[in-house]
Amino acid sequence: MSMSNPVLVEVTRGNLVESRHRGMVVVVDGSGKTVFSLGETDAAVFPRSACKAMQALPLMETGAADAYGFGNKELALACASHSGEPEHVALAAAMLAAAGRDVSALECGEHWSFNQDTIIAQARSLKYPTQLHNNCSGKHAGFICACCHGGEETAGYVNYDHPLQREIRGVMEGLTGAALAHDNCGIDGCSIPTYAVPLKGLAHGFARMVTGNGLEPVRAKASRRLVEACMAEPFYVAGTRRACTRLMQAAPGRIFAKTGAEGVFCAAIPEQGIAIALKCEDGATRAAEAMVAATLARFFRDEPELHASLMAQANHSMRNWNGIHVGDVRVTEAFGL
Amino acid sequence: MSMSNPVLVEVTRGNLVESRHRGMVVVVDGSGKTVFSLGETDAAVFPRSACKAMQALPLMETGAADAYGFGNKELALACASHSGEPEHVALAAAMLAAAGRDVSALECGEHWSFNQDTIIAQARSLKYPTQLHNNCSGKHAGFICACCHGGEETAGYVNYDHPLQREIRGVMEGLTGAALAHDNCGIDGCSIPTYAVPLKGLAHGFARMVTGNGLEPVRAKASRRLVEACMAEPFYVAGTRRACTRLMQAAPGRIFAKTGAEGVFCAAIPEQGIAIALKCEDGATRAAEAMVAATLARFFRDEPELHASLMAQANHSMRNWNGIHVGDVRVTEAFGL
Repeated sequence: MSMSNPVLVEVTRGNLVESRHRGMVVVVDGSGKTVFSLGETDAAVFPRSACKAMQALPLMETGAADAYGFGNKELALACASHSGEPEHVALAAAMLAAAGRDVSALECGEHWSFNQDTIIAQARSLKYPTQLHNNCSGKHAGFICACCHGGEETAGYVNYDHPLQREIRGVMEGLTGAALAHDNCGIDGCSIPTYAVPLKGLAHGFARMVTGNGLEPVRAKASRRLVEACMAEPFYVAGTRRACTRLMQAAPGRIFAKTGAEGVFCAAIPEQGIAIALKCEDGATRAAEAMVAATLARFFRDEPELHASLMAQANHSMRNWNGIHVGDVRVTEAFGL
Repeated sequence: MSMSNPVLVEVTRGNLVESRHRGMVVVVDGSGKTVFSLGETDAAVFPRSACKAMQALPLMETGAADAYGFGNKELALACASHSGEPEHVALAAAMLAAAGRDVSALECGEHWSFNQDTIIAQARSLKYPTQLHNNCSGKHAGFICACCHGGEETAGYVNYDHPLQREIRGVMEGLTGAALAHDNCGIDGCSIPTYAVPLKGLAHGFARMVTGNGLEPVRAKASRRLVEACMAEPFYVAGTRRACTRLMQAAPGRIFAKTGAEGVFCAAIPEQGIAIALKCEDGATRAAEAMVAATLARFFRDEPELHASLMAQANHSMRNWNGIHVGDVRVTEAFGL
């Protein structure tokens, strides 16, 4: 990451700017042509959870998802960073059950929900969360289903050398154009490998997924199916009041959006054949959410209502515990909005 | 805030830097001489909760604290951003009771604890938190006690024009050397005014508090008393496993440390007559915590054990849900450590 990424989001208090976030944004089409960019878009970033729809491709391509009768909700959950709400937890369990497995097959670890309302509800109903409550449990359930359907051993499915992770590595190399190996590999929060790739390659990967450009028919079809499932069931991609869910609800069937830890966001507008990848340099979620909403808004200028709805997610006021307006989160002029 | 603050903290994953934090740090002595600095230290920053010990001065100087029999714990809580643990909540209630008031006099608003263990415990024992659970309830209880002792109306004690806030404004102008008025005033999370002041002035204010340099005897004595109370009862300044508490526990009676929202941290080393003020440009707490620990460590180089203890708070590893080491938070070479 360069030292020269521009300030893209400001947080104000009173009449002053209190904090600033720098970052990079790139929008590309299916051919890989950049149609908009800010900052150092050749820098390598860990996509983290933003690339879950790529990681779910083996589940579709192997026929596992169809064999187990998975519909939009299950496919959306396989691409999700969910809040651990009861519907998410129940569906992850059902996906495992479809393959004859249960929570004990998961290797993602356990954590309480990151969402305040949900952790309060969990604290009142659970002694401790299970691996089903992990925000990645749907992705992991999908991994296990892919292994079971393919006759692979599921134990160790999170490891770099497991056939599933090798398969995912190949899928992601094809989509992003980046070479993935130990030197650009880290371990994600849920223990699977995560590979740093140039931001532009990440965007190109999603642009390929929504256009099919350069993809074999099986991959093009599987990609379209996963993206459509997420757009059809945005609650299962994130949860109540979450950014991904709200962005996809703003234009049903027309916007795909997926967050990742440390300030990453990916999105796509299938009807325009373009995809977005961005990262806030300091890893802040509040900035990445503003950045992706503003970037999407740029491409809906001729639809005033949708544009305004997206800009309301990009620029929003902050209230304190007494409900008093204390400041704003707002994108900078760099976005040209 | 300038565009040119250096990168002071890096967050790594695998062998790569995943996120970067910029910021500014200044260390000054009682005369206002800068002994260490990084970045734009003349920039105006909102101290937020980092200046609570300054805001507690009227409680001491008016004699209210002595009249109500407050000891170290009550004074520490008056300077605290506590986690809402049962001891904090009970003591805030006791402070109000000493002045014949109760929770209904508070004007700070209510919120669940920011600390995961505490919110879980709260969810299991409370339907909803009260204003006593607000992280600022000790400061507000102190405000109310100062008003009651001085015969002031408490209603509206959070407002810019209330005599108490005028008094605090004067105290903070004297300590920081900055003019405080509507144009650099914002509203804090707990609804009281917060004033943006040059970072160096903020540090000078704390250096004055720990040296008494240029202060009238009453203020010098009250300042020393509050700082000593915080150092004597660090749990009451923050809470279990919190950064302020751990920093002060690392060198009992020798380090004062207080965090503020949006990446601010103030600290002082009374025996060396110096104070620190810093801000992470993007408002990240994880970076501000690393920055303050590293800055403190610079001034304890001749005490290897204490230096190592502080550096272990500056640079620390991150583990995922399965306990696997995935990366590190570390300060950059800018600190010269």
